[in-house]
Amino acid sequence: MIYFNSDYTEGCHPAILERLAETNMEQTPGYGEDGYCAGAAKLIKEACGAPEAAVHFLVGGTQTNVTVIASALKHHQGVLTAATGHINVHETGALEACGHKCLALPSLDGKLTAEQVAACVDAHYADESFEHTVQPKMVYISNPTELGTIYKKGELEKLYRVCREKGLYLFLDGARLGYGLACRENDMSLPDIARNTDVFYIGGTKVGALFGEAVVITNPELKTDFRYHIKQRGGMLAKGRLLGIQFETLFQENRYFEISAHAARLAEKLKDELTKTGVSFYVDSPTNQQFPILPDAMLEKLKENYTFSYQARVDETHSAVRFCTCWATKEEHVNALLNDIRALQ
Amino acid sequence: MIYFNSDYTEGCHPAILERLAETNMEQTPGYGEDGYCAGAAKLIKEACGAPEAAVHFLVGGTQTNVTVIASALKHHQGVLTAATGHINVHETGALEACGHKCLALPSLDGKLTAEQVAACVDAHYADESFEHTVQPKMVYISNPTELGTIYKKGELEKLYRVCREKGLYLFLDGARLGYGLACRENDMSLPDIARNTDVFYIGGTKVGALFGEAVVITNPELKTDFRYHIKQRGGMLAKGRLLGIQFETLFQENRYFEISAHAARLAEKLKDELTKTGVSFYVDSPTNQQFPILPDAMLEKLKENYTFSYQARVDETHSAVRFCTCWATKEEHVNALLNDIRALQ
Amino acid sequence: MIYFNSDYTEGCHPAILERLAETNMEQTPGYGEDGYCAGAAKLIKEACGAPEAAVHFLVGGTQTNVTVIASALKHHQGVLTAATGHINVHETGALEACGHKCLALPSLDGKLTAEQVAACVDAHYADESFEHTVQPKMVYISNPTELGTIYKKGELEKLYRVCREKGLYLFLDGARLGYGLACRENDMSLPDIARNTDVFYIGGTKVGALFGEAVVITNPELKTDFRYHIKQRGGMLAKGRLLGIQFETLFQENRYFEISAHAARLAEKLKDELTKTGVSFYVDSPTNQQFPILPDAMLEKLKENYTFSYQARVDETHSAVRFCTCWATKEEHVNALLNDIRALQ
Amino acid sequence: MIYFNSDYTEGCHPAILERLAETNMEQTPGYGEDGYCAGAAKLIKEACGAPEAAVHFLVGGTQTNVTVIASALKHHQGVLTAATGHINVHETGALEACGHKCLALPSLDGKLTAEQVAACVDAHYADESFEHTVQPKMVYISNPTELGTIYKKGELEKLYRVCREKGLYLFLDGARLGYGLACRENDMSLPDIARNTDVFYIGGTKVGALFGEAVVITNPELKTDFRYHIKQRGGMLAKGRLLGIQFETLFQENRYFEISAHAARLAEKLKDELTKTGVSFYVDSPTNQQFPILPDAMLEKLKENYTFSYQARVDETHSAVRFCTCWATKEEHVNALLNDIRALQ
Repeated sequence: MIYFNSDYTEGCHPAILERLAETNMEQTPGYGEDGYCAGAAKLIKEACGAPEAAVHFLVGGTQTNVTVIASALKHHQGVLTAATGHINVHETGALEACGHKCLALPSLDGKLTAEQVAACVDAHYADESFEHTVQPKMVYISNPTELGTIYKKGELEKLYRVCREKGLYLFLDGARLGYGLACRENDMSLPDIARNTDVFYIGGTKVGALFGEAVVITNPELKTDFRYHIKQRGGMLAKGRLLGIQFETLFQENRYFEISAHAARLAEKLKDELTKTGVSFYVDSPTNQQFPILPDAMLEKLKENYTFSYQARVDETHSAVRFCTCWATKEEHVNALLNDIRALQ
Repeated sequence: MIYFNSDYTEGCHPAILERLAETNMEQTPGYGEDGYCAGAAKLIKEACGAPEAAVHFLVGGTQTNVTVIASALKHHQGVLTAATGHINVHETGALEACGHKCLALPSLDGKLTAEQVAACVDAHYADESFEHTVQPKMVYISNPTELGTIYKKGELEKLYRVCREKGLYLFLDGARLGYGLACRENDMSLPDIARNTDVFYIGGTKVGALFGEAVVITNPELKTDFRYHIKQRGGMLAKGRLLGIQFETLFQENRYFEISAHAARLAEKLKDELTKTGVSFYVDSPTNQQFPILPDAMLEKLKENYTFSYQARVDETHSAVRFCTCWATKEEHVNALLNDIRALQ
Repeated sequence: MIYFNSDYTEGCHPAILERLAETNMEQTPGYGEDGYCAGAAKLIKEACGAPEAAVHFLVGGTQTNVTVIASALKHHQGVLTAATGHINVHETGALEACGHKCLALPSLDGKLTAEQVAACVDAHYADESFEHTVQPKMVYISNPTELGTIYKKGELEKLYRVCREKGLYLFLDGARLGYGLACRENDMSLPDIARNTDVFYIGGTKVGALFGEAVVITNPELKTDFRYHIKQRGGMLAKGRLLGIQFETLFQENRYFEISAHAARLAEKLKDELTKTGVSFYVDSPTNQQFPILPDAMLEKLKENYTFSYQARVDETHSAVRFCTCWATKEEHVNALLNDIRALQ
Repeated sequence: MIYFNSDYTEGCHPAILERLAETNMEQTPGYGEDGYCAGAAKLIKEACGAPEAAVHFLVGGTQTNVTVIASALKHHQGVLTAATGHINVHETGALEACGHKCLALPSLDGKLTAEQVAACVDAHYADESFEHTVQPKMVYISNPTELGTIYKKGELEKLYRVCREKGLYLFLDGARLGYGLACRENDMSLPDIARNTDVFYIGGTKVGALFGEAVVITNPELKTDFRYHIKQRGGMLAKGRLLGIQFETLFQENRYFEISAHAARLAEKLKDELTKTGVSFYVDSPTNQQFPILPDAMLEKLKENYTFSYQARVDETHSAVRFCTCWATKEEHVNALLNDIRALQ
């Protein structure tokens, strides 16, 4: 069985395991206050062109989303998100369990526009009963989105400008950030993201680490007391150095970007080749998640050898499914998949 | 510098790293639904003599405490705990952040008694305004406790009997369970614990794993929907197999118990030798945490070569401190410490 | 200025004030444990044909919604609601502040259908990652809805049947229940509602009381410990008898139904007369809230003498607005409004 | 039966009922945005010598405590309170249900000292793991306390000075404030309280109103967005004018202070006369709650004609109980009680 159902099916980049083995019996302070975390934070700040940023390491995505958002908001405030946003649909109400409403906005491509945000905030304050609704205070976006789409630099700049004008924080969930930055349609760099958000994170779990997400906070208001929130939300890893070692390894020798580029290239190959054979797509994703629309009969056959995830029914005989590539995907597996699809057409 | 300040200063048992390396490029389902987790669960159920138990793997202790307790309680219910309990003092209010009050009871040795629990519950219902106070519904204990003490089998049985009579759940936090089971004063087995609690967990983070806690649920009421709570509280590890592999390795070849015994033996050596030199202790701990009372002047000198944690001021010139041994502690380090203390006496 | 903007612009039915004055210096137990509350509960149970129901009195609607829902749900569970539901849009995230997500379903008329609920629950459990989303456990409806529409008896029966089949509770918010029961299109009685819900409430605030909502719980599971939740959510009125006196007065001499019928008749008059003059409506409401679509220029003029609330922009020159009648509305005011509208056409 | 068990056994001052009747059929805006609320706020700001204060009206004490505290704190912050504080023991964990821990400090008389607060905050920041515990951010006191004791002006000033030095808010729960201000031992005025707290409230429920608490916010940080929190916590009364009318009436013609003085005088009479007969007291309360220690046998007899509340067992044959006077207490009832106690001695 070949797994294309997600981008967290393997372990981690071998260099990480080597470093874990080398350092295994060292004694270090706990809770992220060791030298490896400091070293990783330094590399990340450099990569982001953000020497003043605060960098914290957490274990997983849901935990990170909850910790960042809950640390930023007061009880009466909520977060704007695309209706398809991970926080709105795939975290078992983790954010609501912290007391905050997801203010979901419709989106066909998983992205929010500056205009949507501005209109929503304006509508809130225009309502004479505005205190009877949750105050919008943060915008949550992901890049790439749940649908694989990405923000162009101009879009992000515009969105951030609106956020500042309206007094909202902008938070970018980068669980798959490497795959967004590495794709051919991307025109943004890490420093662009650091300059155009208040806080974002660089995903490790899906991009070469065993686990781990690196939160980069550039807005000073959001830096204060952040570690209390990590602890309160259960994200303060006792052996915090495990996160430091992983991110240090990923940000050395350009690894994070190289392994992302590998996944991006294979996804592009998959997309291009399927397009050539006449396959259409549920959404035009430029990144490592591809959503082809395929005949149900073909999907039944493909299931025998491949895992993929179901996205949506398109018509009576076709469904959209999701294939993911990742840092560990083998080109021969992509080739095999393409051949099998062609053979079944 | 030699670290005695905690039991999570090193990485993990080398056999775990080996298994992680061997399995690294395998593809598996995520979120704990892989074969390694199943295998580890099987071993743990066998070790607990609890074939019907549900076993789940989480990343860390605070997360586990919150997930277990919040999954069991309704909003108006609280949890009885010793005032020194980890949930009451060292989790940044994580449980309150889930909406539940810690109902703290006084305890000199970190333990709760059956009598205390019975009296507290009786007092609750005897109050005609009982609905104006939080309903006690769960008892939280840790074994070993924060002060290194352990429950004797008879004590746990009595406590559990009271819990069942009064309609409360009994939850045992076993973050350091191995060290409790391995100490010479212990008279309990894993099956004893499984039989005399509704839910407990077996700590990995402090006992040989990189991270991880194995929750064992024996009460059917508490099994229902538990995975929703893991996800909601941010504890569902994408690459869940990392937990399975670690616990499978620990519960193979008796490793968990052997490495625990190592730590216990070194702690006993430390305790015995210090006692011989006339040192007294803040609390009479039989496990891997030892709390000697030492002169402040000596502590200043020791700090140059050792880390330890501060516990309490005892008098104007003496403080109680904590030294921890663990699975990775080197006997030569204990010897060095003992020699240095003797030399400074 | 004549107020049509809401149904809580006046004080209360004069008979209530009389009873408050008569009983003012009596001494009674607090927190709803007095004879007036008992008397009111008895009358309500009789009116509902539900001798086994538990009846509790709370102060206001948001408080009641939160208390009922939070008392019924565990942390990982959420409540299905029409997207327009009061809990979803007009309570400042009160429910999320208790930790629960509103699972909003689209609705043009403010109602939920049995089919929608069934489909939503089925989709939840069909998803292999179902534990990554909030578990649907309760259905919240209001009758009349926020848009003035009502459920027909057959619709409610069908909805309740689906809820029982799927293991969900059905909760009916009756903040304006009187106006729903009294309108000419209604075919349900209080006993019908009691038989076809697990819990509902009878609104007092908008129907003749100074304040107060009477919660009627028929499902035994939901009766347990309910008073803890009232206290925890801040709804346990010290002088609880004030609620008992009000509801006792309303349910004596058929007052609740008579004053509701008054409001219903005036709303029907407003609707019928406006329809005759060619006015169309944003939604076809049979109850005390009417949503005519009027020219913006006319609305500007009407504002000089009347208050009403803004509902939605319909086209460049027309808006939908809301006029409410209530137990206290004077027919001469409705006549004046109708005349002014006709004059401005 | 004569009720001394609480200070909320009667309805309200007759002048309030008169005003409610006079204004009953007026139409006003809802949610506290009417002229009566504005008028009452003006009177209260004058009485407090605090023209810049924000004044809000809520329905009950638990609701007010929760709303004020939750509006002031971020998730990782907690509130210092005497262990006997109402928020800690008599609100069914309402504050924890909002996510915040009560940081309870021991107190024999229900009061906190400036030294206690300073020591607690210093200890928090001295701990190197301070982020593992809840951050103290607010001090909650009540005046009078749950035990009837009051703060002297010098004590409050000192406490407030410490709060400002340490960066904590000071919140004074004045559910019984009138009875504190009116007692012969008091040396504070309303303006003293306004100057030496960040926020406090003036209780109406226990001092002449049917219900209602007037929150006075002097710290500008705490004024922002407060109405969102009122709504979120279920405290925004639809017919908000009911609160305005009540407080306007109480603060006209010195009523609030006169009726408080009546209760204080009767409590002092009760205390003085019991003292004369040799009765000792559980706590030396100068206000309307008196806690005599009486023989159990006598209490059994007294129960036949009087209600009072049980406080604590003192020895095998004696218990401390609580008798409350209030604005409505009849002197003849106090006399009867005194006579009966004397007769039973």
